[in-house]
Amino acid sequence: MQIRTDLAVESQALSPSPKGVTSRRYYRGTLEETDVKVETEEAAKALEKDIGAYITLYHPALAHTEAEERKEIIRSLARVIRDVTPPEGEILVVGLGNRHMTADSLGSRVLEDVLITRHMKEAVGDELKGRLRGVCGVAPGVLGITGMETAEMVQGIVEHARPAAVIAIDALAARESSRICTTIQVTDTGIRPGSGVGNHRAGLNRKTLGVPVIAIGVPMVVYAAVIARDALSLLLRDMDMSEQEHRQAMDGMVEKITRQGLGEMVVTPREIDELVGRVARLIADGLNLALQPRLSLDEIQYLSHDGP
Amino acid sequence: MQIRTDLAVESQALSPSPKGVTSRRYYRGTLEETDVKVETEEAAKALEKDIGAYITLYHPALAHTEAEERKEIIRSLARVIRDVTPPEGEILVVGLGNRHMTADSLGSRVLEDVLITRHMKEAVGDELKGRLRGVCGVAPGVLGITGMETAEMVQGIVEHARPAAVIAIDALAARESSRICTTIQVTDTGIRPGSGVGNHRAGLNRKTLGVPVIAIGVPMVVYAAVIARDALSLLLRDMDMSEQEHRQAMDGMVEKITRQGLGEMVVTPREIDELVGRVARLIADGLNLALQPRLSLDEIQYLSHDGP
Amino acid sequence: MQIRTDLAVESQALSPSPKGVTSRRYYRGTLEETDVKVETEEAAKALEKDIGAYITLYHPALAHTEAEERKEIIRSLARVIRDVTPPEGEILVVGLGNRHMTADSLGSRVLEDVLITRHMKEAVGDELKGRLRGVCGVAPGVLGITGMETAEMVQGIVEHARPAAVIAIDALAARESSRICTTIQVTDTGIRPGSGVGNHRAGLNRKTLGVPVIAIGVPMVVYAAVIARDALSLLLRDMDMSEQEHRQAMDGMVEKITRQGLGEMVVTPREIDELVGRVARLIADGLNLALQPRLSLDEIQYLSHDGP
Amino acid sequence: MQIRTDLAVESQALSPSPKGVTSRRYYRGTLEETDVKVETEEAAKALEKDIGAYITLYHPALAHTEAEERKEIIRSLARVIRDVTPPEGEILVVGLGNRHMTADSLGSRVLEDVLITRHMKEAVGDELKGRLRGVCGVAPGVLGITGMETAEMVQGIVEHARPAAVIAIDALAARESSRICTTIQVTDTGIRPGSGVGNHRAGLNRKTLGVPVIAIGVPMVVYAAVIARDALSLLLRDMDMSEQEHRQAMDGMVEKITRQGLGEMVVTPREIDELVGRVARLIADGLNLALQPRLSLDEIQYLSHDGP
Repeated sequence: MQIRTDLAVESQALSPSPKGVTSRRYYRGTLEETDVKVETEEAAKALEKDIGAYITLYHPALAHTEAEERKEIIRSLARVIRDVTPPEGEILVVGLGNRHMTADSLGSRVLEDVLITRHMKEAVGDELKGRLRGVCGVAPGVLGITGMETAEMVQGIVEHARPAAVIAIDALAARESSRICTTIQVTDTGIRPGSGVGNHRAGLNRKTLGVPVIAIGVPMVVYAAVIARDALSLLLRDMDMSEQEHRQAMDGMVEKITRQGLGEMVVTPREIDELVGRVARLIADGLNLALQPRLSLDEIQYLSHDGP
Repeated sequence: MQIRTDLAVESQALSPSPKGVTSRRYYRGTLEETDVKVETEEAAKALEKDIGAYITLYHPALAHTEAEERKEIIRSLARVIRDVTPPEGEILVVGLGNRHMTADSLGSRVLEDVLITRHMKEAVGDELKGRLRGVCGVAPGVLGITGMETAEMVQGIVEHARPAAVIAIDALAARESSRICTTIQVTDTGIRPGSGVGNHRAGLNRKTLGVPVIAIGVPMVVYAAVIARDALSLLLRDMDMSEQEHRQAMDGMVEKITRQGLGEMVVTPREIDELVGRVARLIADGLNLALQPRLSLDEIQYLSHDGP
Repeated sequence: MQIRTDLAVESQALSPSPKGVTSRRYYRGTLEETDVKVETEEAAKALEKDIGAYITLYHPALAHTEAEERKEIIRSLARVIRDVTPPEGEILVVGLGNRHMTADSLGSRVLEDVLITRHMKEAVGDELKGRLRGVCGVAPGVLGITGMETAEMVQGIVEHARPAAVIAIDALAARESSRICTTIQVTDTGIRPGSGVGNHRAGLNRKTLGVPVIAIGVPMVVYAAVIARDALSLLLRDMDMSEQEHRQAMDGMVEKITRQGLGEMVVTPREIDELVGRVARLIADGLNLALQPRLSLDEIQYLSHDGP
Repeated sequence: MQIRTDLAVESQALSPSPKGVTSRRYYRGTLEETDVKVETEEAAKALEKDIGAYITLYHPALAHTEAEERKEIIRSLARVIRDVTPPEGEILVVGLGNRHMTADSLGSRVLEDVLITRHMKEAVGDELKGRLRGVCGVAPGVLGITGMETAEMVQGIVEHARPAAVIAIDALAARESSRICTTIQVTDTGIRPGSGVGNHRAGLNRKTLGVPVIAIGVPMVVYAAVIARDALSLLLRDMDMSEQEHRQAMDGMVEKITRQGLGEMVVTPREIDELVGRVARLIADGLNLALQPRLSLDEIQYLSHDGP
């Protein structure tokens, strides 16, 4: 029973903070930003996270803010993305995951609202000419639907599109259900194999793709087994029991989880369908603002595929 | 923290079986049928279920059987439905729930595959004439989307359509995650207020609608709070602790659940989107076979809306 | 071969203007407003339109305006809707048509973005209390899918919801393809039987529902037969031919149309899927602004179901 | 105003049959098969079709046959596909077109029902082992949505997946509306640049991809301009008019078409949404049967993604 999280900020909280990890926290109104840097191989191993920067934005009502606060979040997200993205050259946005599985559909949904411009350069009028950064995008699907490893497909596309960087969007798994649809993680390390909601991910990073890979993710689920085990741990801590009793209790939990088929189960908000749509739009807005600094928000909306 | 199940078979298992409840179990290959009868007001109160018959079909791989076994299940379901449905007169099928929320979309998805015939009587060719039973259908939506109580809407429609009976389809909540998408409950009691995945349901029954109401449901979620509490109970049972320690442990669990926002969280299979589609088709097939005994399965498929 | 249009402004242009019809045209930038009043039974018969007011907004790029112009159109639409809607009392918005048929899906798509408030009165915070007008909504589906006449269903719902007025949204058929997704018609006459894209409509009007019925529609198709016949007429006009030759030519056209199965064919823009989505949002915005005059646009967006 | 068809059988009917084209017709009940072979460069130029074989299946009610006739069509389609496909080696199925545009969504819809097996080889049980042919699939999307040429993307994927052949599925444009959703064309020439519903297609053929490319297509639209012009031609033929009058009439038609914006308009059946779904399933069934000759139809259904 593997217990895991895709959030560096959670990994770090779990470990007695090892050498080689730095962490800073900032607040902008209700929005909380945490910058975690994993700096050594040792730290990477301890946290099960690759060496690099992990920036986390957290807002308890991320999907349900009013207009002004929403704009604030979009601007913060755009700034965070720009900080880890090469300033020039074309960008390939990769929407990971399975569009037919709600909790795994974030990547393909964000892609639907990303402003795709790479093919527009001739078509657009004079007033836009020279102001558009080239962006292309693909939602490669998952192994079970394509029969191909995502990494294989993305490699093939990168070789032909030759972008300056890849930005990959994916749904994440977290440990705490309070993280679901409230937290955005941006990292310059790319995608770590085996992470994500669908367990489907092959590694997408500078080593496999040959260009910088930025990953943007939002937790959509907590594995039911994680919640059960965490709850139990918390309770046992306060009890006066021998090590053997403790082990027996944990084993009992694992057995119950297995018997109920909980290993395949996830915990999600009942309204996950609506939340994933709202969060996808938020991320697309932040990404568009980050990638098209010479456009206004109004111009972005006018040009973007789904209209205002 | 209300702990509940929509399955009579689970309610019964929880209670030290009270007077006024009878239960029988049959097997047909891997398919398990349980008939629970709630016969007295006392029993109804103890089980939190209305007086009436609850027939449960259970198959551990309900959504993933091979062709022959699938036909077996469809035929069993058709028989169960026929047993509680008036043999003559038009039927109104009501697909309850929220089509935009995967775990609550069973009702509207079943409706998409139900053979609607009430308007066909003139249009169909000679060879069908006289063999079609009149079926109409509606997916009224939920309070949050329509602003109207479902029961109000269905009442208005029943008054105009004047069916001999209503068959309501809905997604259920269960206690055991092993029930999700493996169990079909058919009951002649109608829909009990406040049950279902969306917590949205007003009562639909003979008293409110004036005609018999049959309800067909499949568990799609277990509330996360239920799983946590059940797991804890099981473990505490084996521990040697005072009543006070026990109460403290349970309170600690409740507090953790509340703090994490788990009350709004549900446990579902990761592939819920695919499962709900498969189960919806299965139920629609069983329902069509039950309501159109003078048609062959081939004719049903040929006439049904989505084609083979 | 019935040749028809759902737009009063086209009916009027076809007829040598009869007594009992008045028409005025206004311009606000590129937006053209035409007010047609059908005032006598004679005129109603000549135009095949019921007695009442028909207000048409036309913009050649209705679905593709920039932010400022879009707001202008929304405000104009809101004003036009308010002019024909009772100022107080609850409103039932009815989204007509078939959600599974792109060209007929306008009604149900608009409904998805209408701010539904009838059930909110207790839930909302103090700052909204007293400022919300009660709005409920339903997408009843079409005869082929429900087995019931739409009018029957809506009658049943009106009897229970008891709104002060009904606003019905529907996709229209026009004569000129340049009208598709560029024209919004608002009328206080309700829905005329047999009109619309799906040919499915029963009459929804004050007589059948007992309350005022406002209809809002946008042409989504032109029947292919109409285009063929119009094109031929135009050409024949310039030719020096006998009446018999003229009739022969028209008959030849009709025969060709029939032989090709063109009677069932519609002419639509290739990108109809995208256009219907954009126009639906536009209408929902105008409708929300008309029905909630005590809310700002920002508040409307914050409260509305699909979020910003 | 380019007048074109993607069907070789229509191209051939238009031209006074040139040298280098052979054509045979067969009947199996109501199903009509036409085999057109384009054998010389001259013929290719005259027909605007590449050198190769074009097999056309036509059934006037292709999307609405009863169970037995449907199986007949599936078997015929499977045989036709096998005749032009390498008998061994992995296959990459490419679903072309825009999934968000109904008339252009055939490719991605077929892909949803294709049995993807390339990744299954280890997972499947013993009884399947050795009987599955490896099939992978991708729906690359269109230029306007990805910013990349489809051919570029498919090239990249082919280089990594290294299939023995590519089978590309696409929506076609025809000249006669009676061809829409009644005709399937299978060709060993691949995809010709600029054809298809979306006008988006880059060439996919043995030359660009390095492996055999089979294309399967079904007409979904006729361009409105084509219908108008054809109708006019037909009529003018019978009139006694000078060449100048003839030219004037045609010019008048072109002007009218342009003025109405008909160039961007398509003629389609009103129920195109339903038809494309039915035809997509039919093609997927035929394709699965062709590619998995060692599986029964029942096994194919059991394994295929969307279930029975």
